[in-house]
Parts: sequence; structure tokens; C-alpha cells
Amino acid sequence: MEFATALVFIFIACACGIIWAIFNWIAVHKLEIHHKHEGLTELLQGAEQEKIETLLEIGEHIQDGAQAFLKEEYTDCSMFLAVMAALLIFISPWSSLAFILGAATSMLCGYLGMAIATAANFRTAFSAITSLANAFQMAYRGGCVMGFLLVSISLAILSLLIIIYNAIIVKSDENNYEDLVRMFDYVAAYGLGGSTFALFGRVGGGIYTKAADVGADLVGKVEKNLPEDSPKNPATIADNVGDNVGDIAGMGADLFGSFAESTCAALVVSSTQLRVQTDTGYTIEIGQLMYPLMVSAFGIGICILVSAYAVYISKVNHINKIESTLKFQLLLSTIALSPIIIGIAYWALPPDFVMRAADGSVLLSDLKPYHAFLCSLLGLWSGLLIGYFTEYMTSHSYTPVREVAQSCGTGAATNIIYGLALGYLSTIVPIIAIAVTAFLSMKMLSFYGVALAALGMLSNLTIGLAIDAYGPISDNAGGIAEMSELGENVREYTDALDAAGNTTAAIGKGFAIGSAALVSLSLYGGYLTRIQTYKVGDEFPFSEGAKIDDPIIFAMLLIGAMLPYAFSAFTMKSVGKAALQMVEEVRRQLHEHPGIYAGTEEPDFRACIAISTKASLKEMIPPGLLVIVTPTAVGLLFGPYAVAGLLPGALVSGVQMAISASNTGGAWDNAKKYIEAGFYRNEAGEVKKKGSDEHKAAVIGDTVGDPLKDTSGPSLNILIKLMAILSLVLAGAFCRTGWLYQG
Amino acid sequence: MEFATALVFIFIACACGIIWAIFNWIAVHKLEIHHKHEGLTELLQGAEQEKIETLLEIGEHIQDGAQAFLKEEYTDCSMFLAVMAALLIFISPWSSLAFILGAATSMLCGYLGMAIATAANFRTAFSAITSLANAFQMAYRGGCVMGFLLVSISLAILSLLIIIYNAIIVKSDENNYEDLVRMFDYVAAYGLGGSTFALFGRVGGGIYTKAADVGADLVGKVEKNLPEDSPKNPATIADNVGDNVGDIAGMGADLFGSFAESTCAALVVSSTQLRVQTDTGYTIEIGQLMYPLMVSAFGIGICILVSAYAVYISKVNHINKIESTLKFQLLLSTIALSPIIIGIAYWALPPDFVMRAADGSVLLSDLKPYHAFLCSLLGLWSGLLIGYFTEYMTSHSYTPVREVAQSCGTGAATNIIYGLALGYLSTIVPIIAIAVTAFLSMKMLSFYGVALAALGMLSNLTIGLAIDAYGPISDNAGGIAEMSELGENVREYTDALDAAGNTTAAIGKGFAIGSAALVSLSLYGGYLTRIQTYKVGDEFPFSEGAKIDDPIIFAMLLIGAMLPYAFSAFTMKSVGKAALQMVEEVRRQLHEHPGIYAGTEEPDFRACIAISTKASLKEMIPPGLLVIVTPTAVGLLFGPYAVAGLLPGALVSGVQMAISASNTGGAWDNAKKYIEAGFYRNEAGEVKKKGSDEHKAAVIGDTVGDPLKDTSGPSLNILIKLMAILSLVLAGAFCRTGWLYQG
Repeated sequence: MEFATALVFIFIACACGIIWAIFNWIAVHKLEIHHKHEGLTELLQGAEQEKIETLLEIGEHIQDGAQAFLKEEYTDCSMFLAVMAALLIFISPWSSLAFILGAATSMLCGYLGMAIATAANFRTAFSAITSLANAFQMAYRGGCVMGFLLVSISLAILSLLIIIYNAIIVKSDENNYEDLVRMFDYVAAYGLGGSTFALFGRVGGGIYTKAADVGADLVGKVEKNLPEDSPKNPATIADNVGDNVGDIAGMGADLFGSFAESTCAALVVSSTQLRVQTDTGYTIEIGQLMYPLMVSAFGIGICILVSAYAVYISKVNHINKIESTLKFQLLLSTIALSPIIIGIAYWALPPDFVMRAADGSVLLSDLKPYHAFLCSLLGLWSGLLIGYFTEYMTSHSYTPVREVAQSCGTGAATNIIYGLALGYLSTIVPIIAIAVTAFLSMKMLSFYGVALAALGMLSNLTIGLAIDAYGPISDNAGGIAEMSELGENVREYTDALDAAGNTTAAIGKGFAIGSAALVSLSLYGGYLTRIQTYKVGDEFPFSEGAKIDDPIIFAMLLIGAMLPYAFSAFTMKSVGKAALQMVEEVRRQLHEHPGIYAGTEEPDFRACIAISTKASLKEMIPPGLLVIVTPTAVGLLFGPYAVAGLLPGALVSGVQMAISASNTGGAWDNAKKYIEAGFYRNEAGEVKKKGSDEHKAAVIGDTVGDPLKDTSGPSLNILIKLMAILSLVLAGAFCRTGWLYQG
Repeated sequence: MEFATALVFIFIACACGIIWAIFNWIAVHKLEIHHKHEGLTELLQGAEQEKIETLLEIGEHIQDGAQAFLKEEYTDCSMFLAVMAALLIFISPWSSLAFILGAATSMLCGYLGMAIATAANFRTAFSAITSLANAFQMAYRGGCVMGFLLVSISLAILSLLIIIYNAIIVKSDENNYEDLVRMFDYVAAYGLGGSTFALFGRVGGGIYTKAADVGADLVGKVEKNLPEDSPKNPATIADNVGDNVGDIAGMGADLFGSFAESTCAALVVSSTQLRVQTDTGYTIEIGQLMYPLMVSAFGIGICILVSAYAVYISKVNHINKIESTLKFQLLLSTIALSPIIIGIAYWALPPDFVMRAADGSVLLSDLKPYHAFLCSLLGLWSGLLIGYFTEYMTSHSYTPVREVAQSCGTGAATNIIYGLALGYLSTIVPIIAIAVTAFLSMKMLSFYGVALAALGMLSNLTIGLAIDAYGPISDNAGGIAEMSELGENVREYTDALDAAGNTTAAIGKGFAIGSAALVSLSLYGGYLTRIQTYKVGDEFPFSEGAKIDDPIIFAMLLIGAMLPYAFSAFTMKSVGKAALQMVEEVRRQLHEHPGIYAGTEEPDFRACIAISTKASLKEMIPPGLLVIVTPTAVGLLFGPYAVAGLLPGALVSGVQMAISASNTGGAWDNAKKYIEAGFYRNEAGEVKKKGSDEHKAAVIGDTVGDPLKDTSGPSLNILIKLMAILSLVLAGAFCRTGWLYQG
């Protein structure tokens, strides 16, 4: 395929994606809420217009809080990113530039996501007054804006970067492949930029959201017996802000990182290794490397059609239809993309190619386009499998969560035991799916295959992000409905939307961790390739490969496997500490202003927001340093082999922890929702709902699950990806240093 | 060193150890308790002699329950072991015989340990009437019997096995090293036998003890507000039986397995690789391989002196002295053993030796005895470090547990979050210690060094076991004191003994997992050596080594790292299910016989014991099969490289989980004890003890911790060891099969 042809299709797809996002953006904003909304008085079950005013106010508070956090976070991060960018100039100014672009794209997408989410949340609550279908539409359209903007913008900027670097760096008149390789090396820093910002987004956002949530629950639900999201609880707004900060901006940054890194990994590996045999030797043209980007581009196109189906055709007029509609989106996009991916492979790739090592030897020969599309399809379908299995493990429509809910009958302890066991058990299927995908794609196309599998899994990322962002929007809508004291039926709708949102959030986390594992593996492959081609004089001192029985590699494998534990300990304690600060502030307010509890005085939301903001920005430093300093220090002190053990150790251990933490937390949350919805019956057959001992036991599980599923679990994605891409960028330095030990 | 000289020392040491154990056994039994014990009436704070009768009765109940369980367990296991022994005949009748001996030794030691523990427990409770020092003595002497019997008997039987096999198999007139190698291959099945039985002991015992404990707590403490170990609770006796079943017999089997396996690993590797260069070539004599056994023998000797110090010289006349006395035992034995180990190395090893690969090439040359003793010392001292660090993380004398206790002020959820974080954090130091030990010992003496390090860590195993077995004896004593309604001061003493016991139990688990990691690594080394020397015709098809970037190895590394999660899920759910059965039975009894709660009717203890026995034997099947079937199936279907990825995956992930689970559970238990002892103060400065909300939160943590610290955590040791030794034994079969894939 010609480079130009590929670019035309890519930019058309990006444009369509952006237009579709804007279209949905407009649709969301079209719902103008004002005090004299027609027919509202009756709908509100006789309540006053005042409630709508409260709703608008709360929506504004959340918007302001989210903006305030982003501003502080962006300010703090910018300084750090600037320092890193400055250091990268020593590697190459081009790398530094790509790094800045990656970080900036991630920031921009995070900001836009927050903007639409905080515009959609109160509108969803408002829509729930009139109908479930409208409320669902609003939340889902909000999610679509986020999903399509993020993928389209990042693909467009990456493509632009490639065009510019290609024009400047690669001399087209000479047959110089080294230029091409060097160019994509520089481009790879785009992924590093995205991932570095994602560290702040995920970890900081995760701490923010859970400090607020746990803090609010501890005083509100446990001590004062206030319902969730009670307007009397000063930490409620911070909790709702947190959903946007953690689950929208943090999640977006994470998945943008995965997308950018796997694209970069595919480009780096393929520019080095993918070659077409001609009569005179081996050649490659940049257009022949565009297959991965084409998959993403067509992914946007297909996902537009699929999401339009959800918006225009399917009608979510009953609570039972919510989850199935969202799930169907995933299935539909996966099915629709499969033949497309096959077609693109035959269109974009050379009909016959080989993979060559840097020293010129042929690693894999006689490769056809079907090898490539098989890798992509493996990734795509194992993503779906992981998604469906995650849903099975975390939705209260199925046995596992119901068992956990049922265990609340004997108290919080059994709830915790069953929940932990569920999380552990839920690793089996995703791990086997990832292992099979990794095995087959490595076997077929080495690490290029792994990168293609990761991109295959992310090819319907727009839909994945849309249904994922739908979650916090619905969660917020529920909170806003509660705080504005809208009628019971409104809350019933928003609760149902939220319960489905917990499941889609868990699905999203499943995707995120699955793709992170594959991305990290492909980056690890890039790292190994890099150190094995490092030359001292005429020799390749690191050509031995990474053998498990090499002392330094085994020792570091063990230490690498420990890092996710240390990291989780840091993040969980950070949440605990920040939550305790929040508890103190809430207690202080309720104590000093008895009017708050009586409902006559408004609590000081801003003080709580300030605490969460400050605490999260401070507390993300230790885990952040762990991720950045560990591989750097190990590489500089103990050389490249040490890192070759550290990375897979962290990968294989971190994936398990991340999956188990996310699913445990999701299951606890939905076990609680199961009881609240009145499905739980004790042995005597009595229904037990809010306020019962069973519900209290479920709330304890839910609170424990909060930091697991929203802070430590998903942050582990960043740990395994960032360590890998950082090592890839620093590989050369590790080969030259290894001050204490050279493997 | 001459073989005969070594044997003389080994048997003398074993004899001394057995004599010292018998001596303590007699000392324990010398305390005859009868109804008219002098001066008792006053000591019992005016209570009646009846209480002593109750005490004796309960002691008998526990003894009977423990015997009943062992009988059933041994019957069930024997059948399984017989099948495995029969299958092993196909490999070699000698292997089969050694396997049977190993299993039988483990069973015997388990039985003897139970016998002394159930004799010491009620005597400890009784002694606590008169003084703390006497009670401590009783519990500690009980522990000594267990420790010294186990190590001495197993070392003696192993040595005997070597003498007999050597006499029959190795032809002394020919210079035939292959006989020696083959002989130790057969001997290795001794370790497999021990470890296979340990699977049943650890897993079955772990499920038994926690089903009873959790079940008793759920109804008794949570629903009925009965104190722990209330005689009105029908599950109390089962709970106390469980401590012996799980923590005495299970723990003993586990550590016997580690000891036997690491000795076998050292013998297998050294007989294959350790050689002395002479003018005519390379030679080795069996006496020169006796260094590891000599270390164990002198370990017994030193530990006799050290434990005699605790028994005769140190006086535990204050609660604060308990923990320090026990800890001092570890320190003292470590210090005393260090010069001895150095001396033995120079005495028992050739002054100059090499390690050779099976193909004759020299792997490591110019080796001296100091290489060997450095490996042993590394293991010994890192064991102490792990022990001390574990104590720091799990004793309520230090900040970490106090922080967890303090977090109970905001409810059970924060307690769980802080406890989990503590467990995760507690992996850092032990993992670094194990990694450094593994790295240096592999660097110095390859996998022989790792086996020596494991044996170094286990060289003061007798003391380790003694202070470990002290724990459940004290725990039982507390339960018996409670049930016989002895005075408050008695329970204060037994509570203090028990709190120290929680810490020593955690220390013991630290040792167990640390040594298991090293043992498993050395067995993995043996496995790699074995497959790399497998020949097809004249070729070595598996000589490539285990490269992480080999597709099958990476995929299996990932799946291996998942196994500990699946295994933990199985065992935790087993505990949950069995506990729920127990809850039902207890509820039924209390409901149908109101006299039990009123104190006028005796509950039916036996029904509860039967439930725990039956449930544990049934529920251990799925996790047991997972451990045995997985490596076998993977090896037979996907070949030797697949297993070469599976084992390290399970190892590096399992170690983390085991450490974190054990320490989390220990910390929760002691956080609860901290509150019960009246050390906890809330923000207003009020002391909160039993019955407060804080205490209730702590009880929830303790209950969650039970299956973590006593079932799933320690069972993981068996997972990583048994998978490794099984693969070692089946290595040849894997090389011939690999039906679906041959790496």
C-alpha cells in the first residue's frame, strides 16, 4: 500500500470520528435545563422547581471541582514532564518533541473527556425524570464523545507526527532503511509521553476518587447512617468529582497510553524486522508498515456505525436491557471488525514478507498477510472473551456475585473472603486468553505479532471507552439525583444505570489490563531486540538471550514480581491516609455546624475537594517514583540483563493482581447493589435491603473494594507498561553502564 | 571426609536430638493433674475442683478429635500414596521405596507432633494457674519435642536410606559415578514422598482448622456474642483440634518436605556436578557429598544447647519477656551455627573442586570450601532477617500492627484496607533477601549453592519448629482455660502466650516460605539440568536453555504465575463452604437445644468435629489436583520447555502471595489482641476493649485473615515445591512426550 493512500484513509477516519463525537456533544448540550421546563412539576411527583435548581448547582459544583483538580494536576505534571522532556533531548531532540506531543495529546483528551462527562452527568439525572431510555441515551452519548475524540485525535496526531518526521528525517532518494528505523525510534517517545502522563492520571486520579469515596462512606454511611450521596455529607461532591477524575481522565490516559505504545511498538519492531524479499535483496517502504494504523482507522469507522445503532435503533426502555445493550455493542463491533481486519491485511501488507534480525539473519520466513490478521483477530476476540468473562464475574445477574451477596448473611468477614476468592478465580480465563494470544502471535510474527494482537484488542477501543465512560457518568447521575432529592423512580433508573456501569467499568478494566499485558510484552520484545543488537567494538556482548537460570535474571524476576505488591501497598495506604484526612474534615464540619445534619445549613464542599486534590497530588509521588526509579536504577546499576528479568517479573505478577483487584472490587460493589435492589433473601426467605445487617456487611466489602478496583488495580497497568517503555528508551544507557554488575 | 566418619557424626546428632526430645516429653508428662492437686483451691480464686475436671475433659476431647482426624486423613492419603508409589515403580522400584519412606516419615512425625501438642496444651493451661514461667516452659518444651523429633528422625531415616542404597546400588570396586548419580536420583523420591503427604497435611489441615475457627467465630462471636472459646459454642473443640491439625501436623509436614527436598536437591546436583580434579581426571567420593547432611547434624547439636538455655536459664516471669525470649532463640542459634558451618565446610568438603555439566564441560572452576559455607551462611542469616522482619510486621509491639489496630477506629473496611496493604508491603524485605541469596549462591555454586542456602536456612529448623509449635499449644491452652472458666489472671497469661505465638507462627511461616522458595529454585535447577542432558540419538534437543522470549516459555510463565491465584481461590472458598456448614450445625444445636446457651446442657462437640473432618478431606481434592495435574498435563502435552516456564512463574508469584497472606493474617490477629489487651485508645483518648465497635471491626479482620494465614498462604509453599519436585521426577517423560507441542 502506498503511504499516501494509507494516510488518506486514516485522516478520513479520524475526521469522521471527530465529527461523530462533536455531533454527540451537540446532542448532549441540546438538552437545555431551565427552571420552567415544561411539564416538570407533575413529573417530579409534586415537588418544587427548587430541585432542578439544586441539580444544576450540583452539576456546576462537580464541573468546578473537576476543573480545579485538572488545573492543579496539569500544573504539577507539566513541570515533571518538562524535566523529562529536557533529559530526553540528550537522547534526541526529536524524541523529546514526540514525548511532549504524546503527553499533550493525553492531557487534551483527558480534559475533553472531563468536559463532556461533567456536562452529561446532570443531564442524565434530569433525563431520568422523563424516561429510562432518555437517561441511557444521554449517558451513552457522553461516553461516545469521550471514546471517539480520544482515539481519533491521538491517531491523527500520531499520523501527523509520522508524516513530518518522515519528510524531515528519511531521505527518500537513498535506499536507507536505517533512517526509517531511527525515525520510528523517535516516534516511540510519543508513547512514552502518553504513558508518563497516564501515570499521574491513573495514580493521582485513583487516589483522588477513592479518598473522597471511602472518606465520604466512612463517616456518612457507617457513622451517621446517611444514604450514599446524601447532600448533607460534605464529601459527596468530592466523591462525584472523583469519578470523573479517576474513571474518565485516568482511564482515558491509560488507554491512550496503551494505544499509542502498541502502535509505536508495532512500528519500531516492523521497521527493524519486516522486510520484503526482492531479486536484489530485502526492501521495505513506509507504506507497507501502515497496517496497524489502518486497523485503528477502520476500527473508528466501524465503531461509528455500531454506536449509531445503539443511539438510534436499540431502545433501552427497561432496566434489564441496559447491560445487554452495552454488551451487544462489544459483540457487534467485534464481529463487524473481523472481516474488515482480514481485508486490510491483504490490502495493506506485502503479499509475502519475512522478519529479519538486526544482524541480517532471517528470523521468520514465508510470512503472508494471514499471519498478521490472525494476530489481530486473536487480540480482538480474546478482548471480547475477557470482556464477557469479566461481566460474568462482576455482574449480579450471574452466580459468582450472587454467591458473594449471599455470603453477607454471615457477616462482613465471609463477604470479604468470598470476594477475594472470586477475584483470584477470575484471573484464570483472562490469563489463559492472554497466554494463548501471546504464544500464537509470538510464534507467528514474533513481537510484531504481539503488538498487532494488542492493537487488535484495541481496534474497537472507541466502543470500549464509550461504554466505560458511560459508567462514571451514570454513577454521577445517581449521585446528583440523590442530592437533588429527585423522586424514588428517578433513583431507581439511575441506580440501574449505575449497576450496569459497574459492570462495564470492570469490562473496561479487563480490556485495559489485557491490552496492557500485550503492550508490555511487545515493548519487552523491543527492549530485548535493542540490547541484543548493542555492539562493543565488533562484538555483541548481550547476545545470549534472557535465560531464566541466569542468576541475575532469576533474582530480578523475583524482585520484579514483588513490585506490584509494593506498588499496591503504597497506593492503598495512600488512599487510606487521604480518606482519614477526609473523615476528619467531614467530622469537623458536622460537629461544628450541626445545621448541616439537620439540613438547614449547606456543607463546605470546597474544603473536601481541596483535601482530595492536595492529598492525591502528594500521595502519588511514592508510587510514581517506584515505577520510574526502579527500572532506571536497576538498569544503571546491574545492567541490561537485570532489567530483562525485572520486566517480565513485574508483568506476569502485575497482570494477576490487576485482574483480581478490579474484579473483586466490581463484584463487591454489585453484591451491594444486588442487596439494595431487593434481590437478596436470607435463609428464612425474608428480603433484606438497605439498613439490614446484610447490607452493612456488603457496604464494608464495597468500601474495601474501592481502592482495589479504582486505585491499585488499574494503576498496575501503568506500572507494567511504563517500566517497559522506559527501559526500551534507556536500553542503550543500560548497556553502557551496569556500574555494579554486567551480566 | 570419609563417608563412615560423616555417618558417625550424623547418627550421634540424631540420637542426641531424639534423646533431648524424649527428655522434654517426659518433663511434660511429669505434670500429672488430678483432682486433689495441692493448694489449687486457693489459686483458682475460690472456684471448685470441678474446673480442673473440665480442663482434663476438654484436653481429652481435643486429643480424641485430633486422633480421629489423623486416622481418617491417614487412611485416605494412604490410598492415594499407594497409587503414586505403584506408578513410581515404573520409574524404579527404588524410587518407589524411597517415596514410601518419605511419606511414612512425614506421617510419623505428624502423629508424634500431635501427640505431644495435645498433651502439652492442657498442661500449659493448668500451669498458668501457678505461674507464667511454668506455663511458658510447658508450651516451649512441647514445641521442642516436636522440633527435635522431626528433624532427627528424618535425618536419620534419610541417612539410613543412603547407606542401604549405596551398599546395594553403587559398586565400589568400579570407578562408576553414574551409579552414584542414579542412587541419589532414587533417594530424591524420599523428598517427593514427604512433599506429597505435606500437600494433604497442609491443605487438608488448613481447611480443617479454619473451617472450625471461622465457623465458631461467625455464630459465637458475631451472632451470639459469646466470647472466643466459649464452652457453650459447639464448634470450640473442633477449633482447638484444628490448631493441632493445621499448625502442628500440617506445618511439620511442610517443613519436613522442605528439609528432605533441599537435602535431596543438594545430593542430586552435587553427585552430578561436584568433582575433584586429579592428575588422571575428575573424581568424587560419596563422603565428599555429605556436607549438607553434616550441617543439619551439627544444627541439631547446637539447637539442643540453645533450647536448653531457654528451658533452664532464661526465666520468663513477665509478659514482656515471652516474645523476646523466643526471638532470642533464633538469634542465638544463628550466631552459634555460623562458625560451626564454616568449620564443617573445611572439614567435609574437598579443598578444591569444580562443578561440571553432564556433558563433561566445566561450569565453575577453582571452587573452595568458602564458596559452600558462604551459601549456607547466606541462607542462615537471610532466614534470621526474614524472621525478624516478619516479627516486626506482625507483632503488636511495633508500628505496622498498631497502625492497623488504630485503623479499626474508622471501621472494618479501613482495617481490611490497612491490613492488605501491610501484607503487600511485607513482601519487600523477604523477597530482596531471597533474591540476593539466590543470586549470590547461583553465582558461586550454581543450583548446588541454592540448595545449600536452603539447608542453611533450615539448619536451625529444630528451634524454628519448636517456637512455631509453641504457638498452637499456647493457643489451645488459652482456649482450654476459657472453656474451663479458669480465673482472669490465668487467661491473661495464656492470652499473652498466645499473642507471642501468633508472631512466632508468622515467623515460622516466613521461614517456611523462604526455604520453600530456595528449595523450589534448586529443584528447578535440577529439572533444567535434567532436560538439558536428555539425548535423542546423539543430539541434545533441549540444550537451548529456558529463554523468557521463547513463546511457550513466556506463555507458561504467565500461566504459572496465575496458579497461586487459582489455588488460593480454591482453598479460600473451601474454607468458606466448610465454615458455612459448621455455622449451620452450630445454629441447629443452639436452636434445638436452648439449654446449651443457658449453660445447662452440653453441646455436641463431636458433630462439629465430624463436619470439619469430612469437609476438609473432601475440599482438599480440587486444590490437590491442581497442584499435581497441572505440571503433569502441561509437561505431557506441551513438552519440557512449557514446564520450564510454568515452574518459575508459579514460584515468583506464589512466594509473594504466600508472604503477603501470612503476614496480613498475623497482623490482623495481633491487631485484635492489641485491642483486647487494652492498648487501643480512640481519638478522645478512651480505651476500647472487647465489645467495642473497634473490637468488632478487628474481629472481622481476624476472621478474614484466618484462611489467608492458615490455609491459602502456607499451602502455597507446597504448591511451588511439589510442582518442582514432581517435574524433576517426570522430566524424562516430558522430553519423550509433548504430544501437542515440542518446544
